[in-house]
Amino acid sequence: MTQLTDTHLYREIHEQPAVLRRLLDKEEATAAALADLIHGRAIDHVVIAARGTSDNAGRYAQYVLGAMNGLSVGLAAPSLFSIYHRPPRFGNALVLGISQSGQSPDIVGVLAEARRQGALTAVLTNRPASPLADQGDVVIDLQAGEERAVAATKTYTAELAAIALISAALSDSAEQRQALAAMPDAVAATLSMNDAIAAAAPRYRYMSRCVVAGRGYNYATAFETALKLKEMTYTIVEPYSSADFLHGPLAMIETGFPVMIIAPAGVMAAEMAEFAHAVRGRQAEVIAISDAAEVLATARVPLRLPAPVPEWLSPITAIVPGQLLAMHLAHARDYDIDAPRGIHKVTETV
Amino acid sequence: MTQLTDTHLYREIHEQPAVLRRLLDKEEATAAALADLIHGRAIDHVVIAARGTSDNAGRYAQYVLGAMNGLSVGLAAPSLFSIYHRPPRFGNALVLGISQSGQSPDIVGVLAEARRQGALTAVLTNRPASPLADQGDVVIDLQAGEERAVAATKTYTAELAAIALISAALSDSAEQRQALAAMPDAVAATLSMNDAIAAAAPRYRYMSRCVVAGRGYNYATAFETALKLKEMTYTIVEPYSSADFLHGPLAMIETGFPVMIIAPAGVMAAEMAEFAHAVRGRQAEVIAISDAAEVLATARVPLRLPAPVPEWLSPITAIVPGQLLAMHLAHARDYDIDAPRGIHKVTETV
Repeated sequence: MTQLTDTHLYREIHEQPAVLRRLLDKEEATAAALADLIHGRAIDHVVIAARGTSDNAGRYAQYVLGAMNGLSVGLAAPSLFSIYHRPPRFGNALVLGISQSGQSPDIVGVLAEARRQGALTAVLTNRPASPLADQGDVVIDLQAGEERAVAATKTYTAELAAIALISAALSDSAEQRQALAAMPDAVAATLSMNDAIAAAAPRYRYMSRCVVAGRGYNYATAFETALKLKEMTYTIVEPYSSADFLHGPLAMIETGFPVMIIAPAGVMAAEMAEFAHAVRGRQAEVIAISDAAEVLATARVPLRLPAPVPEWLSPITAIVPGQLLAMHLAHARDYDIDAPRGIHKVTETV
Repeated sequence: MTQLTDTHLYREIHEQPAVLRRLLDKEEATAAALADLIHGRAIDHVVIAARGTSDNAGRYAQYVLGAMNGLSVGLAAPSLFSIYHRPPRFGNALVLGISQSGQSPDIVGVLAEARRQGALTAVLTNRPASPLADQGDVVIDLQAGEERAVAATKTYTAELAAIALISAALSDSAEQRQALAAMPDAVAATLSMNDAIAAAAPRYRYMSRCVVAGRGYNYATAFETALKLKEMTYTIVEPYSSADFLHGPLAMIETGFPVMIIAPAGVMAAEMAEFAHAVRGRQAEVIAISDAAEVLATARVPLRLPAPVPEWLSPITAIVPGQLLAMHLAHARDYDIDAPRGIHKVTETV
């Protein structure tokens, strides 16, 4: 048996505070340059092209750039470009490509078309020399160092921090910048959850299916937590907005059905506590990732976030317990931590 | 035991050809008026607010209005309006609300804000006297008659047809209009799948989880098929773009894992056949809903679509076998067909 601490994944999860410090330090000027272009061209909507983990970072961008900067954000449909060859008009949009590897042909195709149309393009990638980066008017380097585990962790939190950096630059807000500068330490504090999560994981050794609910800023966290659990533990895990869940899927819940609830303190916590009570009323088993007392109180397994942060930045810490849980559950099942079956680090979809 | 043919659901599924005929007849002029407003205001992007089944109709709109009309389409994040009270700027967007009941406060809130900002608003609803309809500059009545089963069927295909009607009006294309006019008969022909699906359903009596894959125009069909199966049969069913599935979730597939593949003939069929081979390579059980020979050939359970239609309209027929399968599987499990546990016809999320 490989020791967990010897895996790439364990190391990469624990590198996140250092990655975030480096990113915030080195990429602030580039984010400011992008903000100037967005203001200068009076851009009011953003189209994001991304897949997998990076698509979840795009979901975060929809809320942050919407709430903090008043930008309408939509996610592109890459097959309109790569398969149907009928690209829509971007108009005066910013087209933002997000990809750790910068390789996926369908994402590159969206950015290339945006550039052909004369739209402003920006790229978040860990590979500033890549086909995707070549299509960016502005390129933010995620500064994560090589990511060797197949499951993305440090590049995801770096993508979130890069989006928050762009938001703070757009607002030109000292308060936002200061809050963001505190996030590497907050992630370091959150890593102290490792032992509690290692102890909780075996309870789910034979779990075959699960729902993860989040909403607002942490809609992205629900999706990314579900993706880590799926790719590493081969469990059927479905992410949901708590609101969408009540439109039909609630019917699935029966006694003991595991429902993970992502609910950092903030405006959304009351809504999530109400949702937790609704599924508890149907005898679900609630696993809560939260620092809100009213949410933790509903849980069979409460996982307390130790570092309070502003809600708009909470996805950067709230994903950490999900990463740790996926790792410890894969370990409890004796699965390969660094190379889950059937998938590769770079997926070149068209 | 209630006879299936005596349920609201069975009747409403079979009413779909008549509903579509009525909608295409009565709402063409309204769709044309909306197209004139979109052209007149030089609108180039669309924001859609919807939940549940109607959100899946929004996914269809993203592809149709993108590919046929060059419009960028994004889905709104209602909680930015209803919970965070930080609405983004719509700029020169069309804001489209879709809701069978016209009741959900969060969707009404998005449209009300759009109107406050002076954006063009349109509503697709089965209740032209409703809070949502009150916020629409243009209101298309789905003409579906009262829908009494909790699971939406005829209002979904009516929403798709209304979107196709808007697209044809925007293109001012006789060919598109003619193709759309043939869809009620195509849906009637597709209903002949009822007996084959009734015979296939018992095989899945004890299926506890399943994936539904679709891409492009039928990304929406994958989501809606999954939603019907979830709400009526309480199975964990996760919808995917075949491209997203290869970015991680493929790891879940093991011998016998059921994968439903939605692949009507068209540009996307070759891509879907390749995907079918990928999951077959991992010993998945493939259930194919298709009229493309290369896709049907991969399936353990091929469900052949009997009526060939243009790809852009294929979601209107391709959802019918999913509706029938959800109904027959619920029947095989002796579940309530018209009133699944735990959910209601109108869900008022905020």
